[in-house]
Amino acid sequence: MGMVGGGKDAFIGAIHRIAANMDGLIEFTSGALSINPEIAKDSAKSLFLPESRTYLTFEEMFQKEAALPEDQRIDFVTIVTPNFAHFAPAMMALNNGIHVVIEKPITFSLDEAKQLKQKVDETGLLLCLTHTYSGYPMVKQARAMVREGALGAVRKVIVEYPQGWLSKLSEREAGNAGAAWRTDPKRSGKAGAMGDIGTHAWHLAEYITGAKVTKLCADLNIMVQGRALDDDGNVLLKFDNGAAGVLIASQVAAGEENALKIRIYGEKGGLEWAQQEPNTLLVKWLDQPTQILRAGSGYAHLSSFATKNCRTPGGHPEGYLEAFGNIYRNFAQTLLCRVNGGEPTPEMLDFPRVEDGIRGMAFIDTVVASNGSDQKWTEFSV
Amino acid sequence: MGMVGGGKDAFIGAIHRIAANMDGLIEFTSGALSINPEIAKDSAKSLFLPESRTYLTFEEMFQKEAALPEDQRIDFVTIVTPNFAHFAPAMMALNNGIHVVIEKPITFSLDEAKQLKQKVDETGLLLCLTHTYSGYPMVKQARAMVREGALGAVRKVIVEYPQGWLSKLSEREAGNAGAAWRTDPKRSGKAGAMGDIGTHAWHLAEYITGAKVTKLCADLNIMVQGRALDDDGNVLLKFDNGAAGVLIASQVAAGEENALKIRIYGEKGGLEWAQQEPNTLLVKWLDQPTQILRAGSGYAHLSSFATKNCRTPGGHPEGYLEAFGNIYRNFAQTLLCRVNGGEPTPEMLDFPRVEDGIRGMAFIDTVVASNGSDQKWTEFSV
Amino acid sequence: MGMVGGGKDAFIGAIHRIAANMDGLIEFTSGALSINPEIAKDSAKSLFLPESRTYLTFEEMFQKEAALPEDQRIDFVTIVTPNFAHFAPAMMALNNGIHVVIEKPITFSLDEAKQLKQKVDETGLLLCLTHTYSGYPMVKQARAMVREGALGAVRKVIVEYPQGWLSKLSEREAGNAGAAWRTDPKRSGKAGAMGDIGTHAWHLAEYITGAKVTKLCADLNIMVQGRALDDDGNVLLKFDNGAAGVLIASQVAAGEENALKIRIYGEKGGLEWAQQEPNTLLVKWLDQPTQILRAGSGYAHLSSFATKNCRTPGGHPEGYLEAFGNIYRNFAQTLLCRVNGGEPTPEMLDFPRVEDGIRGMAFIDTVVASNGSDQKWTEFSV
Amino acid sequence: MGMVGGGKDAFIGAIHRIAANMDGLIEFTSGALSINPEIAKDSAKSLFLPESRTYLTFEEMFQKEAALPEDQRIDFVTIVTPNFAHFAPAMMALNNGIHVVIEKPITFSLDEAKQLKQKVDETGLLLCLTHTYSGYPMVKQARAMVREGALGAVRKVIVEYPQGWLSKLSEREAGNAGAAWRTDPKRSGKAGAMGDIGTHAWHLAEYITGAKVTKLCADLNIMVQGRALDDDGNVLLKFDNGAAGVLIASQVAAGEENALKIRIYGEKGGLEWAQQEPNTLLVKWLDQPTQILRAGSGYAHLSSFATKNCRTPGGHPEGYLEAFGNIYRNFAQTLLCRVNGGEPTPEMLDFPRVEDGIRGMAFIDTVVASNGSDQKWTEFSV
Repeated sequence: MGMVGGGKDAFIGAIHRIAANMDGLIEFTSGALSINPEIAKDSAKSLFLPESRTYLTFEEMFQKEAALPEDQRIDFVTIVTPNFAHFAPAMMALNNGIHVVIEKPITFSLDEAKQLKQKVDETGLLLCLTHTYSGYPMVKQARAMVREGALGAVRKVIVEYPQGWLSKLSEREAGNAGAAWRTDPKRSGKAGAMGDIGTHAWHLAEYITGAKVTKLCADLNIMVQGRALDDDGNVLLKFDNGAAGVLIASQVAAGEENALKIRIYGEKGGLEWAQQEPNTLLVKWLDQPTQILRAGSGYAHLSSFATKNCRTPGGHPEGYLEAFGNIYRNFAQTLLCRVNGGEPTPEMLDFPRVEDGIRGMAFIDTVVASNGSDQKWTEFSV
Repeated sequence: MGMVGGGKDAFIGAIHRIAANMDGLIEFTSGALSINPEIAKDSAKSLFLPESRTYLTFEEMFQKEAALPEDQRIDFVTIVTPNFAHFAPAMMALNNGIHVVIEKPITFSLDEAKQLKQKVDETGLLLCLTHTYSGYPMVKQARAMVREGALGAVRKVIVEYPQGWLSKLSEREAGNAGAAWRTDPKRSGKAGAMGDIGTHAWHLAEYITGAKVTKLCADLNIMVQGRALDDDGNVLLKFDNGAAGVLIASQVAAGEENALKIRIYGEKGGLEWAQQEPNTLLVKWLDQPTQILRAGSGYAHLSSFATKNCRTPGGHPEGYLEAFGNIYRNFAQTLLCRVNGGEPTPEMLDFPRVEDGIRGMAFIDTVVASNGSDQKWTEFSV
Repeated sequence: MGMVGGGKDAFIGAIHRIAANMDGLIEFTSGALSINPEIAKDSAKSLFLPESRTYLTFEEMFQKEAALPEDQRIDFVTIVTPNFAHFAPAMMALNNGIHVVIEKPITFSLDEAKQLKQKVDETGLLLCLTHTYSGYPMVKQARAMVREGALGAVRKVIVEYPQGWLSKLSEREAGNAGAAWRTDPKRSGKAGAMGDIGTHAWHLAEYITGAKVTKLCADLNIMVQGRALDDDGNVLLKFDNGAAGVLIASQVAAGEENALKIRIYGEKGGLEWAQQEPNTLLVKWLDQPTQILRAGSGYAHLSSFATKNCRTPGGHPEGYLEAFGNIYRNFAQTLLCRVNGGEPTPEMLDFPRVEDGIRGMAFIDTVVASNGSDQKWTEFSV
Repeated sequence: MGMVGGGKDAFIGAIHRIAANMDGLIEFTSGALSINPEIAKDSAKSLFLPESRTYLTFEEMFQKEAALPEDQRIDFVTIVTPNFAHFAPAMMALNNGIHVVIEKPITFSLDEAKQLKQKVDETGLLLCLTHTYSGYPMVKQARAMVREGALGAVRKVIVEYPQGWLSKLSEREAGNAGAAWRTDPKRSGKAGAMGDIGTHAWHLAEYITGAKVTKLCADLNIMVQGRALDDDGNVLLKFDNGAAGVLIASQVAAGEENALKIRIYGEKGGLEWAQQEPNTLLVKWLDQPTQILRAGSGYAHLSSFATKNCRTPGGHPEGYLEAFGNIYRNFAQTLLCRVNGGEPTPEMLDFPRVEDGIRGMAFIDTVVASNGSDQKWTEFSV
């Protein structure tokens, strides 16, 4: 594995490395870790990268890696730069025969995402998008239950992602680089909170229900004066299976951490999952007591999509890093099958792709368009 | 206290009687308990009413009671009939100098509500509307904290009321009278779930924040085929203080009981209260650990509006009946002050009035209008 | 109903009156509310008692009430004085043909309790002991499930009752009468926390499991210097069915309110109930997901002992006052059957009796004896 | 890092490898993974170990590794064999200058543990014992708060570890190797549940409070017929600071997963931490609302011992593997300081040692002795 971005001043790079390390399947061997050469070198050193594979630009990395013997060069690259700097390295990696893992949102614009898809289709390479929350085992359990019809037809979806960390104008504080680029339209894109976390909420809703949003009605707000992008929003949703829903995303929900939560109601029952207590899935029945499904439990109810994404037995809580690790593990196992000639299982193939990235960019475009419109509904099409 | 409706086949009448009995301040002495004479008589007997004050119609009751000596006749009447049958007895009671307690929604139409208000204004009598959830002590604590500015300016409101009991076409089942009239536009009014429980959610939002909804965007749904009124809905809200919000009401959220919940976020922190665990108020701070405020606790933080609406010390859970009892107790104490000449305290005066009823009817009208409109926003004015 | 004790300076009297009022089955008509004549009179007046039935001593009350015509005099008396003053009025009431409700612990000593039992047996009158927590519907559900063998043989019981209100020497503070008598061996009895709340925990364990404690090993502590009775204790338990257990009671568990909780494990599963969230019973299965049973729910799983002790449908939380009211209601319905000649149902007969009181006093004696012994086990026999 | 035990049929070996891999500080390079040569080889291959460093016995491993150049050989070995097979490889590693990480309990007997301590003292090498639960950040936060006197003097400790997985005679089922050796006195030691999980509970109590158990009173039970060792137990505890406590451990608490929980009460407040929701620490105050402290939160309240053991910001749940990883990371950082000449910080030095192992073995001995005694109290001395 190589890495673009993720120098020692960046949070998300460290997360990706832990996730990739966890299972002993992936070796981190090279990187272009910062556009600042000093940071790039220092970071590489502290991460035990050899000097020979410490690069100052992604262009250098892909050229030199591609020139190495096949069994020495990187199989894939992870791109963890800010949004505006996803497209160029991803495209160049694909052009050099290198598979790609990319932090979400996939690109800066929908158009870039479509170009990436074309390139993925041409090259046949893998592109994995780290919509982390879809890596949690009980999210996969929820999806399996909906698919199997345990709830009957889905009628209602409530998905929410409240955070509080932008309740003040934190982007103006020294040292808050994460807030600074996320609230800057030039680096983040058209949307603020809706792009950063609303897309996660949207993805979770489509991932679990298997239904697609067909139209929506968005109300985006800038609650903190002096900010250029939305820090709060509420969206009405309609799905292609007749379900209705609400999506709530906010970064000014003061006092909240990362309270992503989804509830799905069907004819026969409902599901509730909350990211901050991720090992539990509440299953609410119309005519029976609510059940508490727990990750790692031995009883026969759990789908193989849940059990194969756990590393410990019940009662040993797993968390965000393991969910992230599941994305990497499934991707790596699929890649290993390619390399070794095996056939990946459906569980291995269960990681987000370029298609998810395109719909995610379209979600942002549609939400922003709806917010600017006097009409109630705006079509969501890709 | 007299009662109109609430015979032995009705749920809500029994609730009102328990709530009124609880504190030994109110004596239940007469009733026109059913339009069915047999049920009226049987119910009265089983409730130990004297035959002389068992009436077959509300007209009879008000005439005969008004003719009794002042110290013997009823001071007030409680109206617990279906929505369409609120207006006539309320108006006649007021015309006969009898104070009124009325189950929500106040009337069948906004126009009736306005007529009632005019009559209340003319007569100077009290009209109490049982928006029960505003009777919970921790709801009152939340309101007091917002008023005192503990959260700073309110930015976001999320209020939701999911129930699951209409997930099937239960109104067609024998013996489900409550489902039958609530889903019948002739007896219930213009809206289904939005009228029955959406109004409670709306009232809670305005009651706690002290802000008024100025416009909204509603999406109402009929999820169970064969039903004439909405059984599900999602509404975007804008408030007069600049806050934005979402209101969710559903009676097809399969597996939910009565999961009314409200979250309010301001500049400095957030509040979360859930009806099913009503003795707890979560107070989330931007820069401090979340606090768990508990009803009945001795510490100095609780407002007098919370403490005066508790009957037990901390750790002895109080519930729905006590919240209902608080509405009655505050109303009765205010009435006692009128009779005995004292001045009611602000805590006594804290019960919903005819003005809440008018805004509630306007909320229903506005939601229904918005649902029928292609425009995003519909003004909410009274 | 008459009342001995419970004047306006006493907490528990008010609770008893609310519980008795709630269902409209019981009329509060006379009282000897305080040994202080002024308080007795003032309290009676503020509670709307007629002067003619306001008494200054319980002796006066029983003499005069017994002299009234049968349809006017009180059917039963409620005794809510401190522990040392339970026996005399209870005995005199029984001697005058008046049924008795008595706050727990039944008497000051085991010997008094045995005398009361003899009198109850002689007279055939009812004696109801308000072990409130056994009045909760989900406690009754737990008991029904154990009885039906849902868990298989019971193996382990963990019952705990932590409170924090005696973490300081509160009995020395002005105006804390409740702390003063509870910590005074002359008024409270041999044990402090174990008598006041340990007995509730013990009763709950025997009530739900149907098993009897046969021996125990107690460690009682005085954690606050200057106190004469235990304010904390831990007890190992052995039951007659082979189960083992732990009982924890503390009034110096700083920060706890009234956190009574019981867990019971059998061969096939476990039960968990907590008083502060009393409408929920967790049912944990060995090979199935945990279920959340909820009071008032419509599904067929709930025992008639649970459903008949609810006043509202699911999702409308009931609490401590309703549990207290259930004791009164069941007692009153049993009494009504006596008066009217009917046969009380098993559900009506489900309230604590003089036998529970005797075992409760023996529990206190045994715990105190064990605490003073160097031997591990002390037999619990009555 | 080398590993003894942990072949592909063992659960705990995989956990250790994930924990060691996680932070990129430790490289897994050699192993004697099974006493079965085929399993040893297959396991090593599937874990990408080179053949040259795949050993069939620990003796071979230590001899050959010790013969490698210093910069190539393993710095430390992890021992993850069943209890009876801890001592010999640990002793040999220390004799060969190799640091040791060892799964708990440290040895089969107290005597072995004392010999290991002597060797550790002689050699000056590090021995790290994986009492995993002390690796959780909010456990460290609790310890820091007690140390700083936030609670005042500690009065009461309630620590419990209920599991349900031995509710049946699972050790007789094919393929349940873990149950088989844990319930076998020849491989597990004197105690069953008390040795396996009671020691974790005891360690947590001493770790957080900083107090030492001075005497105890144990009641051990065999609830499942046919078993040779305790599967359930309750223990009264006395601490050297005057606190009293209860320790509960059970493997027949049907329906429980791994419900380790500790509550500590002092003069001013209490702490509550539960392993299954490990990112939360409840802080209960005598005169203030309960606070919810959360791992990873930015507010100033958290101790450096908590913050340095988190990898993600608040709201990204971390779990058991991260807690395990913290033990490894702190150990590895201490080792790096040794190698590189730096001074480890107090936070790095915060991992369990041979002394914890000795007290743990003494705890088992004392509990078993007390269980066999008629005396209430048995001294706990080392």
